[in-house]
This record gives sequence, C-alpha cells and structure tokens, in this order.
Amino acid sequence: MTIRIGDWNVVNGKQNIPYKATDKLYECNPKIEMFFNLYKTLCKIKTNHYSIRKRFSSSNTLNSLLKNVAVGEVMNIKGWIKSLRKQKENYFLDISDGSTSERFQVVAPLSLVSKNITVGSSISTSGIVQTSPNGQKELLANEINIYGDCIVTNGYPFAPRKKYSSEYVRQYLHFRPRTNKFSSLLRTRSAAQLYFHTFLTSRGYINVQTPILTSNDCEGAGEIFRVMPESEQLIKSMLKEDGSKEEAFFNTKAYLTVSGQLHLEAAAHGLTKVYNLGPTFRAENSKSRLHLAEFYMLEAEIAFVEEIGTLLSIIEELVKEVTKLVLDNCEADVHNCIGDVEGSFQWLHKNFAVLTYDEAKNILIKNENIFEKGFEEENGISKEHELFLVQHCGNIPTFLINWPREIKPFYMKDCKEDPSKVYALDLLVPGVGEMVGGSLRENDLAKLIEKLPEEHEQLKWYTDLRKFGGVPTAGYGLGFERYLMFVTGIQNIKDVIPFPRWPHNCSM
Amino acid sequence: MTIRIGDWNVVNGKQNIPYKATDKLYECNPKIEMFFNLYKTLCKIKTNHYSIRKRFSSSNTLNSLLKNVAVGEVMNIKGWIKSLRKQKENYFLDISDGSTSERFQVVAPLSLVSKNITVGSSISTSGIVQTSPNGQKELLANEINIYGDCIVTNGYPFAPRKKYSSEYVRQYLHFRPRTNKFSSLLRTRSAAQLYFHTFLTSRGYINVQTPILTSNDCEGAGEIFRVMPESEQLIKSMLKEDGSKEEAFFNTKAYLTVSGQLHLEAAAHGLTKVYNLGPTFRAENSKSRLHLAEFYMLEAEIAFVEEIGTLLSIIEELVKEVTKLVLDNCEADVHNCIGDVEGSFQWLHKNFAVLTYDEAKNILIKNENIFEKGFEEENGISKEHELFLVQHCGNIPTFLINWPREIKPFYMKDCKEDPSKVYALDLLVPGVGEMVGGSLRENDLAKLIEKLPEEHEQLKWYTDLRKFGGVPTAGYGLGFERYLMFVTGIQNIKDVIPFPRWPHNCSM
Repeated sequence: MTIRIGDWNVVNGKQNIPYKATDKLYECNPKIEMFFNLYKTLCKIKTNHYSIRKRFSSSNTLNSLLKNVAVGEVMNIKGWIKSLRKQKENYFLDISDGSTSERFQVVAPLSLVSKNITVGSSISTSGIVQTSPNGQKELLANEINIYGDCIVTNGYPFAPRKKYSSEYVRQYLHFRPRTNKFSSLLRTRSAAQLYFHTFLTSRGYINVQTPILTSNDCEGAGEIFRVMPESEQLIKSMLKEDGSKEEAFFNTKAYLTVSGQLHLEAAAHGLTKVYNLGPTFRAENSKSRLHLAEFYMLEAEIAFVEEIGTLLSIIEELVKEVTKLVLDNCEADVHNCIGDVEGSFQWLHKNFAVLTYDEAKNILIKNENIFEKGFEEENGISKEHELFLVQHCGNIPTFLINWPREIKPFYMKDCKEDPSKVYALDLLVPGVGEMVGGSLRENDLAKLIEKLPEEHEQLKWYTDLRKFGGVPTAGYGLGFERYLMFVTGIQNIKDVIPFPRWPHNCSM
Repeated sequence: MTIRIGDWNVVNGKQNIPYKATDKLYECNPKIEMFFNLYKTLCKIKTNHYSIRKRFSSSNTLNSLLKNVAVGEVMNIKGWIKSLRKQKENYFLDISDGSTSERFQVVAPLSLVSKNITVGSSISTSGIVQTSPNGQKELLANEINIYGDCIVTNGYPFAPRKKYSSEYVRQYLHFRPRTNKFSSLLRTRSAAQLYFHTFLTSRGYINVQTPILTSNDCEGAGEIFRVMPESEQLIKSMLKEDGSKEEAFFNTKAYLTVSGQLHLEAAAHGLTKVYNLGPTFRAENSKSRLHLAEFYMLEAEIAFVEEIGTLLSIIEELVKEVTKLVLDNCEADVHNCIGDVEGSFQWLHKNFAVLTYDEAKNILIKNENIFEKGFEEENGISKEHELFLVQHCGNIPTFLINWPREIKPFYMKDCKEDPSKVYALDLLVPGVGEMVGGSLRENDLAKLIEKLPEEHEQLKWYTDLRKFGGVPTAGYGLGFERYLMFVTGIQNIKDVIPFPRWPHNCSM
C-alpha cells in the first residue's frame, strides 16, 4: 500500500518527502488575529471539532513580529534591505518584507557578511532582539544569509537614497511593489477592497459576480473591446456555415463588460441587495490622469428603493464607513501617500453637499469667465467644472442629482416633478471629480420599452425582469481607483492600480 | 446661494427634494452586525468621531427581520411570493426576498387583495406579527401592495410547485437568482468569496489584483482569447504605420489572462504574501461539466517558502478553514444544495492524503482494467483517474506531488532528489478531481533562463525578479467554481457561477 494518510512523514516506513513539520502557531497580525478569533467565537465555530495540522513552517511576517517579539528573544527575519549604513564595526540595515510600512533595524558585525551587501538585496537574518540607543527594538544579528543581491550597475533602476518621479517608477511595474510609496498604496488598496466586501456584507448585500464577457453593451456608448480566440485553428473548428469568425466561439460577438449593472438588476430581482467589485473596460483613446482601459468598479443594486434620497444616504454611508475603516487600519500607509491625514479627511465630519443639475448649471454659467472652457449644455459638465463645483460647495463630496433625460442612458427613471429629468446622480469628490454614478431604474414596463434603444432584441431578458415580479430598484457604480485617488491623494490613476493598462500600454 | 449643505431637506427655504428621512438604524444581520461592531471596537474606531447621517430608509431584509421582530409588532416586508394557498377566508403566502433561504408566512384576508395573486409576484405587505398554529411567527396582513405580477401564461418559465432540471433553469439565467436552489448557491458563493478574503487577510496576505488584459501567455498553452477595440474608427485612429490592427490599441497584442501567477510573483518580491481572487479565461472548446471559458481563480504567492510540505500545509489549512466558515454561516444554504451536510464533510476531520506522482502512476497501472481508458504516461492523468485516486485514498482530498518536469511549465523548481521531477502539486477532491495546482518556483536565475521557452524576450521582467533581490517563492491557484462544486455537491460548473460562459454560450 503506497498511499499516505495521516502523518506525511511516514510512507512505507520511509521518510522521503522533504517536509519539515513545525508546531509553531500560524503567524498573524495580532489585531486581525483578535478580530478573527472573535469572529469565530461569534459564529460559534467549534475550533477543536475539526482536525487541522498546524504545521505552517513559513516564516512570520515583519508586521506580526514587530508586535509580538520581546527584548532578549531569538528571532529570524526575512526581507529586503531598505537602507544601509556601514560603520567601523557594524552594518546597520533597515529591513522590510512589505507586510507593513515599518522597518526593522538590524545590527550586523562586518565579519558576518561575506561580501558587500547592497540596498535591495534579499536576506534572512537571525539574532537576539535588543534595545537600540533611541529606545526602539532592533536585532543584533549573529547570522546573515543573502538570497539575492541587487546591484544598480547590473541594471537595477532604483539607486539608494534617490527619489524618483511616479512616471519613472511606472516604467518598472515589476519592481514597483518594492518601492515605499507604492507598497503603501498596495496595502491600502488591499484593505479598502476588503472593507467594501465586509461593510456591504454587514448590510445584507450578496456578492454576485457579474460576467466579464458579455453580449450586451450596457452603456451603448460603443467604447468596447471585442474578444475572440487567438487560435485560428480553434476558430475554424467552431465556425458555423453562416457565421462570422467573431461569432465562432460564443455564437455571438462577445465584448468585455463596461458595467455589470443590468446583470445585477437581474440578481436584485430575487436577492434584493446585491453588489460586485470587479474589473471593467473601456476602449477609449484617453491618456488623462483619470482614465484606464481596465479599471475596477464597485457596483450595487438594491430592490425596493423608491426615492433618490435613499440612494444618496446609501452612498454617503458607504463612502464614509469604508474610509473610516481604511484610516483606522492603514493610517501609516495613507500618511505615506497623502501626507496630512488630519487635514485631508475633514469631509468625514461633514454632510455631503447636494446640488440639482439645474442649480449646478446656474453656478457654472455665473462663473463662466473663470473656466478654460465655459459650460455649454451640449458638451456636458467637464472635469474642470466638476472640480469647481466641489470647491464651490466647500471642498466636500457633492452630489449632482436630477439630470436631463436626453444625456443619460435609457434605463433611468423619470422625475415625477419634471419628466425632462431623470433620477440620476453623480458624486463629485475633491481632486478627482466624478467618483460615483447612480440612478433609480425605470421599472414601469411600458415606459421602459418606450425608452429602449432601437436594437433591443438582445434586451428582452431585461424587460422581462419588469414583466414578471418586477420591483423598483436603484443602484450605483463607484470607480474603485478613483476612490483610492481620493483617499490617498495620488494624482494619477495609473499609480493606484498594480498593473495599469491604457492606450499604447499593456506591459507584463 | 443655491447649494445645499447640511440638512438636505432645507434648500433655499424650499423642500423640493423627494427625500424622506427616517431615523431608523441600519438594517443588519444581527450576527454580522455583532461581528462588525466588535471589529470596529477592536480597530478602535471612534464611531462618534465622524458625522454620518443615519437616514437609510430602504427596508430591512427578511434575514434581519426574522431575527429581530417580536410577536405583536407591526412589520412591513417586501419580497416575492414563493408559495400560495387560497382558503375560504384567507390567502396563505410564503414570502422571500432572497436574503435568506427562510420564508415568512403571511396570512391575508381575501378582501385585502384586489386581484388574483400568483406565485412569483412581488409585494409589499404590512401587518402584525402573530404566532401561527405550528408555533412559528407569521404576519397577519392588513395591507398588501403588488409591485408586479408573474403569470406563467404570459411566458414566465417556472410554474408553482413544479421541479425543473438545472439544464432547464440554466436557459433562463436572468430568472435563475429567483429559484430556491440557485439563490442558496449564490448566498454560499458570496460567503465563500468573503471568507477567502478575510481568512487570507488574517494570515498577513495582501490582495494584489492582477491584470485581466496581458501581453503574456503565462501557461504557454495557446488557449487564449485576444482583445481589440470593436470600433474600426478607433483602431484606424491609433494604428501605427508598421503595426497590425491587433496591436493598434496597446502597441502589442493583448490577451485575456489565463493566470495572474507571474504578476503575483512580482508582487511577492516586495510584499512577501500576496493573493488575488478574480476572473480567468480559457479559449478551449470543452463542454465538460468542469470547464468554463470564464471562471474565477484564487491565486496566492508566498515568498521565503522553500519546502513543498509548507505549501501543502498552507493549502490544506486554507481549504479547511474557509469551508468551516462557510458551513458555520451558510449551513441551511449548503444543505439546500448538497443534502447530507454531516456526511459530506467527514473529510474536514481528516488529514489530506499525499501521493507522489510515481506512487499514483503505480496505483493507476495496477488498476488499469477498471478504467474506460487506462493510464498512459504521455496522455497524463485523466479525470477518471483523478477521481479513482481520491476514492482509493479514502475519498478525502489528495495531494499529488513531485511531477515529471517535462509535463509541467517552465517556472517550476527541480526536485533535489530527482531532477527529472519538479516540486509541483495538484490537489484532487472528491467528485471534482483537480481543484488546486501549485509549485515551488525556480528562483535560481541561471536554471530559470535555461528552462525558459524559446520566445522569451517578453519575460525579461520575470527573470529580472531573480536577478535583483530574488527570493524563493511558492504559490498555487485554486479554481473557485470547482471549490464551490466540492462544497455544494453541485455537479455542473455552469450551475455554481451567476452567468456562465462556455463554447457557443454567452447569453446576457
């Protein structure tokens, strides 16, 4: 019998798997660990009920070690050298493993290191924790192993102690997670996405992942990417006699999603509150600091919402609650990005402003001489106008509501008071402009059919949602990268996403 | 002055926004609410520090109402009629809003309802909570408003009290979230994705969203989708003189990702522990019950992991811990899918089995007469073989480790004991077969360059990860839909994703 169940180390009497078991507890960020334990208690999980082998021998992250280790203890840390000073008898190394913005100082006798160490090298070091002259914990190393060195003259693009522009750093996407500011951004981004999930779950939303590939163009704007197999052979083998190559794989042209809203509406007609946080695409030749070809949107749809004010409340609460969670858990990282945390989040203490479209229009017309391009109804509200309106309202997030029907998509609900308007909203925020768009949806079947675009055979399923057990729904889409720009103060959207894609750029 | 800051109801002295404020607290699943409050306490959030208007006037979900409402209270519920009995004086309606698998019985005097009510109709009903003869809470309605009716003879595809096959239900993707079993699946899926996020965060992982659009084909298998703008005009305007149409938008051919592994490796070389849970694509003409053109993968990459046993521990812990969370929070929904919860999760009490590839090969050869197609090395281990191996090991999740080098991708690390093998693993699970694949990565620069595929100019960034501050890393990809099949017992992968895409199918 050759199978191995139970103890992996005993196989046919042999111990032939290179597996070193340890009985260490899992490493954990203690704060999150506490949260997680409490969570388990609340959920009445019988932790001892299941057999789990606790043999995770990967090393603790620095974030966990910094909180748990005491002076006098023996410790091993693994990470990259962030800065380096060579003195008469010792190297002083600052080590980071990217799990936190904090670094840990290692004091290493020169004799320990067989060759010249450089900033950026990866090391494993062991020693004893002691108190440094400035009162902080540091490691007195008695062992240093270098995994890999990092030498600027061999082509590494970042020299120690030099500052680089974000444009320069962006040229090296694969090394960017090693840089201080960008790793702070990545930790903040990770936390923010988690808090969107946990917050919405706490409010009864169900995460329904909408498709990336779709045969609908939800916004009807035509700025879409088309998808087909790369293999000509596969296309040929699937091609129907009367079909085109573009339709061979799916029996229809397939596009990358521009919005999951219509799909979320289908899900809300059964689950009431649904959302998705996922990638979205626009084939737009825009090189602005606010556009990407691939970006993330948080979209939510809520059944039984009949008033635009309810939707405003829902969005304002979401933005504030998630931001509070981010600040309270990532303050050091947010600080690395935005600098003045205290000053930058004054808006959290205030109610968001609300303007109707007509009010905004009047403000813009009154102030037209200060704009590069004055407001003209047919050209819409420009970025310059958006930012002015936010300033005008005291530099706090500002809702624009009740938009002209003709400049908004077909699915929005007419205003009762003025049928030339629809119950639509944009949320404009300081430094960014439009961050959220939303509306009440037209749930009257007859009205909806009247408003449908001409070619609408493909949307029969959408009208059928109203024909059978239809309900009022409302929803919104929040640009996740724009939210991150707002919270981190980072000026270019390409610097708030790990691997940005924009016209003429799709590296890696 | 026309802007409106502070109280939305007062604008220029007018109250012209159709916004009804209520001072109700947010609705919440009480268990999750407790968890969330504790979480906030732990994170030392000063809840009263910020101004938040608590005016969310959308109705409570049934899941929250069921837990909070007491006999004698006045209550309003909104949802869809799931079943209906008309008796002499009353209708008895079971109502659901999809927030839970539970329904709530409403007793409505016939006189309350102006027309015939049908199953599937959407209603809002108010009344008083009372105790039914069987001891459960029910609503004695004094008001019923029908939002929309739902009539089979008008084309609604599901008749009351009829059972439909999952193939039939799948034809109506837009109505599928209204069906009992599929809404249980969607709630389970939502919970599972959240627990993957929370569990990994609790273990120090950072979520790094890898790109959907990429210029790399990570697996080199050629089963990829190509992406380009739909608009010929846009393509023309961006076309370079010496370029092809396919390369016009991004200056390179762009594909849909088949794996974010290589990108995660870049992030792990700076953040140590990283993961992503996102969509992945295969242009494969497979109609099997286990394949989709668009599916979700959880991928993780961990720096400083040097032993395959460590990686096994990490994966076993992940699968068990997340499954425990799912069971403890969604037992009723999992039960709706799988039936026998107690019997189906015996594997949680056991250690996973481990076989080397050579051991598995020997088992398959010994048993070749029971297979439809016997094992032949050059054809690999088939689904039939996978399922047999799992059975053979006692019907528990089974790792296959140490695979032949020539059938695995270039980036895997050679086994020390046998350089014809690599430190790769598959995790096979009952009913599904392969659910996870992973490996230690080759971190020796010279060896990696030797193994690289011939056309590798595009992978210079990948080798540069090793050239500068390189570290050992290991990682895995878990098929999220296959995990859901494993946990819910659902037999077809098209029935565990909201909007499945497979050859000849991309509806909605």
